[in-house]
Amino acid sequence: MVGYAFMGAAHSQGWRTVGRVFELPLTPVMTAVCGRDADAVRAAAGRLGWTAAETDWREMIARDDIQLVDICTPGESHAEIAVAALDAGKHVLCEKPLANSVDEAEEMAAAARRARERGQSAMVGFNYRRTPALAFARRMVAEGRLGELRHVRVSYLQDWLVDPAFPLAWRLRREAAGSGALGDLGAHAVDIAQHLAGSPLAGVSAQTETFVTERPLPGEGAGGAVGPVTVDDAAIFNGRLTSGALASFEVSRVAAGRKNALRVELNGTLGSVEFDLERLNELHFHDHTDSAEESGFRRILVTESEHPYLEAWWPPGHGLGYEHTFVHQARDLLYAIATGTDPEPSFADGLQVQRVLAAVEESAAKHSAYIAVGGD
Amino acid sequence: MVGYAFMGAAHSQGWRTVGRVFELPLTPVMTAVCGRDADAVRAAAGRLGWTAAETDWREMIARDDIQLVDICTPGESHAEIAVAALDAGKHVLCEKPLANSVDEAEEMAAAARRARERGQSAMVGFNYRRTPALAFARRMVAEGRLGELRHVRVSYLQDWLVDPAFPLAWRLRREAAGSGALGDLGAHAVDIAQHLAGSPLAGVSAQTETFVTERPLPGEGAGGAVGPVTVDDAAIFNGRLTSGALASFEVSRVAAGRKNALRVELNGTLGSVEFDLERLNELHFHDHTDSAEESGFRRILVTESEHPYLEAWWPPGHGLGYEHTFVHQARDLLYAIATGTDPEPSFADGLQVQRVLAAVEESAAKHSAYIAVGGD
Amino acid sequence: MVGYAFMGAAHSQGWRTVGRVFELPLTPVMTAVCGRDADAVRAAAGRLGWTAAETDWREMIARDDIQLVDICTPGESHAEIAVAALDAGKHVLCEKPLANSVDEAEEMAAAARRARERGQSAMVGFNYRRTPALAFARRMVAEGRLGELRHVRVSYLQDWLVDPAFPLAWRLRREAAGSGALGDLGAHAVDIAQHLAGSPLAGVSAQTETFVTERPLPGEGAGGAVGPVTVDDAAIFNGRLTSGALASFEVSRVAAGRKNALRVELNGTLGSVEFDLERLNELHFHDHTDSAEESGFRRILVTESEHPYLEAWWPPGHGLGYEHTFVHQARDLLYAIATGTDPEPSFADGLQVQRVLAAVEESAAKHSAYIAVGGD
Amino acid sequence: MVGYAFMGAAHSQGWRTVGRVFELPLTPVMTAVCGRDADAVRAAAGRLGWTAAETDWREMIARDDIQLVDICTPGESHAEIAVAALDAGKHVLCEKPLANSVDEAEEMAAAARRARERGQSAMVGFNYRRTPALAFARRMVAEGRLGELRHVRVSYLQDWLVDPAFPLAWRLRREAAGSGALGDLGAHAVDIAQHLAGSPLAGVSAQTETFVTERPLPGEGAGGAVGPVTVDDAAIFNGRLTSGALASFEVSRVAAGRKNALRVELNGTLGSVEFDLERLNELHFHDHTDSAEESGFRRILVTESEHPYLEAWWPPGHGLGYEHTFVHQARDLLYAIATGTDPEPSFADGLQVQRVLAAVEESAAKHSAYIAVGGD
Repeated sequence: MVGYAFMGAAHSQGWRTVGRVFELPLTPVMTAVCGRDADAVRAAAGRLGWTAAETDWREMIARDDIQLVDICTPGESHAEIAVAALDAGKHVLCEKPLANSVDEAEEMAAAARRARERGQSAMVGFNYRRTPALAFARRMVAEGRLGELRHVRVSYLQDWLVDPAFPLAWRLRREAAGSGALGDLGAHAVDIAQHLAGSPLAGVSAQTETFVTERPLPGEGAGGAVGPVTVDDAAIFNGRLTSGALASFEVSRVAAGRKNALRVELNGTLGSVEFDLERLNELHFHDHTDSAEESGFRRILVTESEHPYLEAWWPPGHGLGYEHTFVHQARDLLYAIATGTDPEPSFADGLQVQRVLAAVEESAAKHSAYIAVGGD
Repeated sequence: MVGYAFMGAAHSQGWRTVGRVFELPLTPVMTAVCGRDADAVRAAAGRLGWTAAETDWREMIARDDIQLVDICTPGESHAEIAVAALDAGKHVLCEKPLANSVDEAEEMAAAARRARERGQSAMVGFNYRRTPALAFARRMVAEGRLGELRHVRVSYLQDWLVDPAFPLAWRLRREAAGSGALGDLGAHAVDIAQHLAGSPLAGVSAQTETFVTERPLPGEGAGGAVGPVTVDDAAIFNGRLTSGALASFEVSRVAAGRKNALRVELNGTLGSVEFDLERLNELHFHDHTDSAEESGFRRILVTESEHPYLEAWWPPGHGLGYEHTFVHQARDLLYAIATGTDPEPSFADGLQVQRVLAAVEESAAKHSAYIAVGGD
Repeated sequence: MVGYAFMGAAHSQGWRTVGRVFELPLTPVMTAVCGRDADAVRAAAGRLGWTAAETDWREMIARDDIQLVDICTPGESHAEIAVAALDAGKHVLCEKPLANSVDEAEEMAAAARRARERGQSAMVGFNYRRTPALAFARRMVAEGRLGELRHVRVSYLQDWLVDPAFPLAWRLRREAAGSGALGDLGAHAVDIAQHLAGSPLAGVSAQTETFVTERPLPGEGAGGAVGPVTVDDAAIFNGRLTSGALASFEVSRVAAGRKNALRVELNGTLGSVEFDLERLNELHFHDHTDSAEESGFRRILVTESEHPYLEAWWPPGHGLGYEHTFVHQARDLLYAIATGTDPEPSFADGLQVQRVLAAVEESAAKHSAYIAVGGD
Repeated sequence: MVGYAFMGAAHSQGWRTVGRVFELPLTPVMTAVCGRDADAVRAAAGRLGWTAAETDWREMIARDDIQLVDICTPGESHAEIAVAALDAGKHVLCEKPLANSVDEAEEMAAAARRARERGQSAMVGFNYRRTPALAFARRMVAEGRLGELRHVRVSYLQDWLVDPAFPLAWRLRREAAGSGALGDLGAHAVDIAQHLAGSPLAGVSAQTETFVTERPLPGEGAGGAVGPVTVDDAAIFNGRLTSGALASFEVSRVAAGRKNALRVELNGTLGSVEFDLERLNELHFHDHTDSAEESGFRRILVTESEHPYLEAWWPPGHGLGYEHTFVHQARDLLYAIATGTDPEPSFADGLQVQRVLAAVEESAAKHSAYIAVGGD
C-alpha cells in the first residue's frame, strides 16, 4: 500500500478485516506500506498492521512477494504509480479520483487494458458502491423495480471549509488535488449516479465557485501568511443520462451543518429510492405500484442477511459503518482477481468519471454551456 | 372572486376564516363569485360562502360594492381580468404565476404601478411565503442568523403525472397553462428562493423535459383519442443570485412518491435552514456557531406564539395546514390595503419571477446556455 | 356552545367550516354562545361567528331555536350542563374528559341512554379519533391488516409545566380539572388506544408524580403568593387489553422539548403502525408480509382522496392541521343526528375512559397494585 | 475467549481492531479461543484470529500465557467460568446478563471483590455504554446539561419472534437463558437507563407475556415436534429511580418492524436527549434554555473528534457501526487493567441489574405489585 493517511488507514482496516468476516478465494497478506518519511511510515506500518515499511514506491513495486498494489496517495501521483505497478505485473487498487486529468486517466486505462490481457486486475476505489444500501439500490434498478428512470438527483455536501481560517491544505491546491469539491466529492457523486442508473452522462451544464479565495498557509497562525485557493469550494451541474433521465448534481464543502451528506434519489416510473450517507444503513423505497392508500417511502434497514454483503455480518438492525465499505471493496477485488473477471469499477469506469469532471470544468469555464462528455 | 375550482376553494377558506382569527383593520365581505357556468357558479357560491354568483367578470368588476377582485382562473386570463380590475379602481389579488408570458406580466405590472398611484393594492398569490416556517426562515435570514448565503437549493416535486393514462387536462396545454411543472411549481420555487435569500437570480442555465408526450383527451377512456402534451413534465436549472450565492432548482410532476415536496435549503456562513412542505410545521435550523460537540440541525416546531402568524392560532405543537397560508395571505393583503403600503409580493415581484421562467425556457431551448434574467 | 376559550374557538372553527367543505345532511346554524362575562362573551360571539351571546347556560338550553348544545367548559361543569341539556331534549357534544369523576360520568351516561330512546345524540369530544391518519389506522386494524395485536404503546408528552414559574391555572387545581396530565392527556391516550385496538383495558398498574408542588397564584409576580399544585404532572401506567395485548402509557406535561407529542404505536402479528401528532399528516406502516429485503416502515402521507375525510379537502400532499379534527367531529355528529344512529364516541365510551382514569389513580395510590377497570 | 458464536465474533473484532486504532497502555494478544466442538473451535480460531483452540475452559484458564478471560457463552455457564477465572488470578470480561439468577450474580460479584483486592479487573459487557452517542449523553447528564431528570424512557424492541415457526432456540429456554426478552434486551435497557441517569432503580411494577407458547424444536420441519417456550416474549415495567425520576421500560421480541430498536429518552428540567440504536451515530438534544422561537431537538451527528472515542476514528459524518462498541469496550478494559482502576460496568453493576430483573419477574408474578429492588 502506498500512502497511510486517512485513506491508508481505511484501506488497512479493510484488508485486516476482510478475511475474518468473509469466505475468500484468496488470503490477503499485508506485506508492506510505503511513504516518504521513514519514521512515520514505520510507525504507520506497526499501527496499521503491515509487516514492512518502504520509503520508495518503486522498490516496493519491485518486490516479488507483492502481487497487489493499493494506491492511497493524493491524486497527483496516481498515474505514475499505477502505470508502473500494472506494467510490473501487479494488480492495482487505486483511490478515487482515478487521476487529476483526463490525459493521465487515459494512460492509466490503457495500462489497465494491457494488464487485463495478462490477467491482471485494476480497480478504482469508488467505495460507496459497496455501501450495502446502495448496492441494494443498484440491484433494484437492475431488476427493474423502479421501472424507467426519470430523475437522478445526487448531492454531496460537507462543511469543513465554511471557516475561512481553515488552512490551505493539499486538497485546496489544484496541482495536488486536481480540483476541489468537484474531484473530491463530485467524483463519488458522478460515479454513484451512473452506476445506480446503469447509464452514463451524455453531457453537462455547470457552475463552480470558490467563495473563500485566500486561506492561511499550513502552520501559519492568525494574521500569518496566506495563499490563494486554486480549487472550487462547490460545483452544481445538471445533465442527461444517455437513457434519457434528467440528472442533477450539487457538491460543496461549504454547506454548513452537512458533515458527509451524500444524498441520492432516483425516481422511476415504477418506484423511487432515496439514500443519505449520514444514515448509511437505510434505504428509503417507494413502490409506485402500492395502492394510493398504503403508499409511501419505506425506511428499509439494509441489515438483513438477504441484503448485499450482509450474509457475513451481524443480525438485523445491527448497523455497519463507513469503514465497512473498504472491507467489501477488498472482498470484491479479491474475488475478481481469483476468478480472473473484470473488477468493478474498472479504470475505464474511472476514466469515464474523469471525463465527466472535465466536462463540468469546461462548462463552468464557458458560462454553463452544455458540454458533451467525451469518449473514445 | 373569479374562478371557484381548487384555488377558488382555498381562497374562499382564507376569506371566510381570516376575520375569525386575526384582528383586522378591515372586515372582508364575500360579495360575489364569478364563473362561466351559471348553475355551477351558483352552487359554488352557496358552498363557499359568497353572497352572489356572477357569470361575466366584467359585470362583477363594474359593481360598486366590490373593492377587491381575487383572480383564481387559469393563467391565460389573468392579464385581461387583472388589468381591467385595476383600471376600474379595484384592489387585486392574482393567483400565481402572474401571467403566461413576460409581455402580459409587464402589462399587469404597469397597470399595478398606475393603480398604486391611485392608492390601490395589487398582490400576486405566492402563498407559500405565508407558511409560518418559511416566514420565520425569511426573518432569520433578514436578521443575519445565517450570515452570508452560499447555497440556495429548492426542489418542488410531485408525482401525479407519472401515470401515462392521466388525461390531457388544461394544466398540460401550453395555451392555457403557459408552461408545465415550470410555471406551476417552478414559479413557487423561484419566488421562495429569491424571497428567502432577499436577492434575485442574475441568470440561469436550464434543461426541461416532457417524458410523456401524448395523453388521453379528457373524457376519453383507454384506447380513446390522445393529444400532444405541450408543456414540460420537469425542469432543472441552476443559477446565481446577484448576492453571489449558488442556486439550484428542480421541479417535476413525475417524481414517484413525492406528493407536494417543496423543499428548501439555505446554507450560509453562520448557519443553515431546511424545509419540506410535506412537513410544513417544521423548520430545521443549524446554528454554525454552536460548539462542534452540540451542533446539529434542530427540528423547530414553528407553532410558538413568537413565530409569524402564530399569535392568532393554537398552543405550541398544534399544527396548521396548507390552507392556512391563504388565511395569512388575506390578512397581509388587508393590512396593506388599510395602511396604503405596498403588499408583498407585488405584481413587480410576479413579473420578475416571470422573467426568470422565461430565461429558463430560453436556456432550455438553447442547449442550456446561460441566460441573464432580463429587467427593466 | 358553552365556553369560548381554546376549545370554544376550535369548536367554532369546526362549525363554521364543516358545511363549506363536506356535503351534509343537516345545515348547522351557529345560534348562541354562552359565558359568564357578558362583555367577553359578546366579543367572542362576534369574533367566532355566533349570532347571540348568552350569560346563563340554563337560559340558552331553554331556547327553542337550539337543538344541539356544545360544551367547552372545564370538566367540573360538564355533568350538570350535559344532563340538563339532554333532559331538555337537546343533542349534546361534550368536551373530554367526560367528567371529573366516575360518578358524574355515570349520571351523564345514564342521561344519554334516556335521551337516546327519545332519538337524541350525545357525543364526547375525543377529537383525535378524527385525525385522518388515526382514522385510517383504525380502518387498517379493523380490516385485519395488522393481524392480532401484541403491543399498544401510547405516550402523550408536553412541556409547558417544566418552568416552575408557570402559574397555578385552573388545569392545575383538582377541584376544577379533576386530575392533571392524566385527565388532560391521559384521557386522549386511553381513548385512542382502546379505539384503535378495538378492545378495552382490563386493568392497569400505575404511578403518578407531581414534581413541582407549589406554583405562583395567577397574577402574582415573582416572589408573590404561591399555592399547592393538587394534580399530577405526569402519569405512567401499563395494562392489558381484554384482547390480550400489552398496553403501555406515559403522559406528562414536564417532558422538555415535547410540545404536543401524542405518539401511538401498534404492533401486530401482520404489521405495525406508528403515529406522532406533531406530524399529524403521516402514518408509518410496516407490512410484516413484505419480503425481508424490502420491508420497512412506510411514511404514508394521509392526504389521498381514498383516506378518511380527505375526499373533501385538498390534493395529495397538501396537509391538514389540528383544527380539522373539529371539522370532522362536527361532520360525524351531524350525520349521526341525521340518521338517528349512535355517534362515536358515545357518553358510554367517555364513561369507560373515566373508569380507566379512576383505576390509574387508585393504582397509583396503592403502590402500583393492579386495578381492574370497573364496569356496569 | 470462551464461546465463538455471535458474541464471540463481535468480541474478536473488538480485540483485533482496538490496537490498530487507539493508543493503548497494553497490547492485547489473542492467545486462545475455547469451545466444546474441537473442529468447530479450530475453524473459529482461524477465522476470528486466535492463535490456539481449546476445548476445555478449565485448561484454558490454567494457561500461564493468558491474563484475561473473555466469556461469550450463554448465561447458564457465566458464573462457573467467571468465578474460576477470577480465582485463578485472571482479569475477566463477561457478556451480559451477568448471570441467570441473583444468587449466581452475587457469587460472581463476591469473586470480583476478592479479585479486586489482588489487583484484577472484572467487567460486564454492557457494550451499549460504549456507543459514542450514549457515552456523550452520559457526559451531558453528568455535566448537568439536562438539569434534574424527570423522565427516563427506554424501550428495546426486536421482531425475530413474531413468526410462530421460529424454532425453540436456547434463548427461548429458561434453563439456558434465564429469561427471554427481559434478560436479553431488558438487561441492556435497565443498565443504560441507570447508567445514563446516574441513579439506580428503587423499585418496579411489571407485566410479562409469552404470546407464542409452543415452538418447533430446532431441526424439526413444519408439523414436527414442538416444545414449550419457557421465557417471556415481552416485558413492560415502570419504576422510579432513587433520584425521583419516573422510569418506563418496554422490551419485546415480537414488535413487528423493529429490528434492533433500543430507544432512550431522558427529559430533564434543562433539556432532553433522545437516541435510537437503529441510528446509532445520532443523538437528538433539546436545550430547554434556547429561546422558544429557535428551540427544537437537534440531530447531533456524534462523529466529531470532540465526541467520546471519536478522536481515533474517521472525519465528521463518517459513521461507526454496531461492532465498534466492542472495540471501545476492549479499549476501556485495557486502560482499567493498566491503571489498576475499577472498570465500568463492574460485576457489582451487573449484579444490581440482575436484582432489577429479578424484581421485574417477581412483580409480574404478583400481579404487578411494586417490588423494591434488593440490595446488600
